Amino acid sequence: MVKTLEWTDAGVRFIDQTKLPTEETYVTCRTYQEVAEVIRSMVVRGAPAIGVAAAMGIALGARDLNAADIAEFRAGLGQICRALGDTRPTAVNLFWAIRRMQKRFEELSGKPIPQIKLGLIEEAQRIYAEDIAANQAMGRFGAALLPPSGGVLTHCNAGALATAGYGTALGVIRAAVEAGKLVHVYADETRPFLQGARLTAWELMKDGIPTTLICDNMAGAMMAHGKVQAVIVGADRIAANGDTANKIGTYTVAILAREHGIPFYVAAPFSTIDLETPDGSRIPIEQRAAAEVTHIAGRQMAPSGVGVGNPAFDVTPARYIAAIITERGLARPPYAESLRALACQPVNIGV
Amino acid sequence: MVKTLEWTDAGVRFIDQTKLPTEETYVTCRTYQEVAEVIRSMVVRGAPAIGVAAAMGIALGARDLNAADIAEFRAGLGQICRALGDTRPTAVNLFWAIRRMQKRFEELSGKPIPQIKLGLIEEAQRIYAEDIAANQAMGRFGAALLPPSGGVLTHCNAGALATAGYGTALGVIRAAVEAGKLVHVYADETRPFLQGARLTAWELMKDGIPTTLICDNMAGAMMAHGKVQAVIVGADRIAANGDTANKIGTYTVAILAREHGIPFYVAAPFSTIDLETPDGSRIPIEQRAAAEVTHIAGRQMAPSGVGVGNPAFDVTPARYIAAIITERGLARPPYAESLRALACQPVNIGV
Repeated sequence: MVKTLEWTDAGVRFIDQTKLPTEETYVTCRTYQEVAEVIRSMVVRGAPAIGVAAAMGIALGARDLNAADIAEFRAGLGQICRALGDTRPTAVNLFWAIRRMQKRFEELSGKPIPQIKLGLIEEAQRIYAEDIAANQAMGRFGAALLPPSGGVLTHCNAGALATAGYGTALGVIRAAVEAGKLVHVYADETRPFLQGARLTAWELMKDGIPTTLICDNMAGAMMAHGKVQAVIVGADRIAANGDTANKIGTYTVAILAREHGIPFYVAAPFSTIDLETPDGSRIPIEQRAAAEVTHIAGRQMAPSGVGVGNPAFDVTPARYIAAIITERGLARPPYAESLRALACQPVNIGV
Repeated sequence: MVKTLEWTDAGVRFIDQTKLPTEETYVTCRTYQEVAEVIRSMVVRGAPAIGVAAAMGIALGARDLNAADIAEFRAGLGQICRALGDTRPTAVNLFWAIRRMQKRFEELSGKPIPQIKLGLIEEAQRIYAEDIAANQAMGRFGAALLPPSGGVLTHCNAGALATAGYGTALGVIRAAVEAGKLVHVYADETRPFLQGARLTAWELMKDGIPTTLICDNMAGAMMAHGKVQAVIVGADRIAANGDTANKIGTYTVAILAREHGIPFYVAAPFSTIDLETPDGSRIPIEQRAAAEVTHIAGRQMAPSGVGVGNPAFDVTPARYIAAIITERGLARPPYAESLRALACQPVNIGV
């Protein structure tokens, strides 16, 4: 299986997702600043993968800190965490991972600095392993929701490449296929970054899962023709009431699914659920550069100087979501209650 | 104003819409086969423009026919009409224009061949002039439907470039702007061919009409944020019951508009209305090559060999359409009655 990212002694190694599918190349970040830059430039993307990347970036930065005492170390770590937190505002997994690394530091802060550094590297690796285990657990819970055969539409890439491995939405699809279900995936290409065309199609073809790539604007027609029996997507942040921020276009897919009587599912690790954000209106939405829309593969497609909208995410209100699949189990409406109940549940995902 | 296409003694001259907006180049077709090829390859596109192009292609082919007598001429003309009719199946204007040229031939068939040739050239030019006049009439009828100020979303290009001039949906927007309305256009980029990014944005910028280019999958988010007060699109074929085939993605926009309580309008000349097709299920939908989806500007964006869906059009059921704007006036639901009533109405659009 492809390694989205991995800790190595030389630094954090990433598959370059801006080069897929035509080139399978890797970049190794040797400093935390380089990790921040690969997050910003979307060499690595996908909320869970961003969280793991940030944890590894912190471990890397902490390892190389030249601190005379714990106060200097704490200050240095704070700077590293701020640099990583400033990369992308929407995915909450990033902030969750940063907080978790900070908490681990506080637990270790009585120890000698070399031991703290080792402990932070171990914590980042634990976050990595837990992410894969969470995806496999989501797969087990979610596979039952998919029909024994039929079309499943997905938007963007919520696959192995969006996580430490296996994937969230694509993890559920993988688990359904492993359970013998005959799933045909309809993959929205997902403009402007084309994660569906470049990443989802590539992942699914590698696994031999039948896939039809469509432009985003074809999803409605596919549903009208009865080709889609379920929709499953990932998430970048889920508010306490179930409102879900995910890749731009997800909201449209949810409305289309509702209009055609097709269930719309969200699969995400519990670290994506932000119980401190009451509803979707409070989720910050990243606006990205116009050139992502006006230029494709470096070639200008729109007139110079045209006004451009490029929100990277949109918010799907909870009322469109049939279930949220987490590693702790399924949440069903009303989400304010079901998500809180899952939050209180003891967790054992077997890491 | 840009000339989408024009009759010249050397042949039919087209602006090359595959090269816009970065290059403004023209191609002159010297044979009817070349006209068929520019229709097929979308150098010229847009239902009304295709109709005018076909009429000019027939006139060109007829002019160069080497026929000893009227029987030979009729046979030659039949071959020309079939070649042009075989280019693109969905837009009914193509077949309307072919039938109209055939009818004109039958009217002239008692005359000497040079006079028939001249008459067919004149008929093509009349179709051209009528198309512009129809668009201006649509503009007058449609402008009243748009709000005094606000956002108007459009999909694909139903502009000057999709017609002989002025445009259908964009003609209504132009007329509204000329009437002093403060329209801000949201232009869907319209994958896979990017008519919105390449053509609509270019046309509107030339006219100084404020425009924001968005990816197709952003339309829902723009509506959710209250930025869109009306939607207006063109059409490739309107069935007798009002079901409307238009560029792929139109159906999705119609559902989004309904969900947000935004009126969805279709603007099209009466030649787009096909009273012989009872409903949308009977409209043939052109399937185009996978490479239009997998490659952008010649660059491969998806893995080799991936399955691809590429329907060029979809059908929006009449129930989503608030009004159909024609040069004969507005049709309102129920369309089976209102379209039939307009069909019976005497026409004077001042050509």
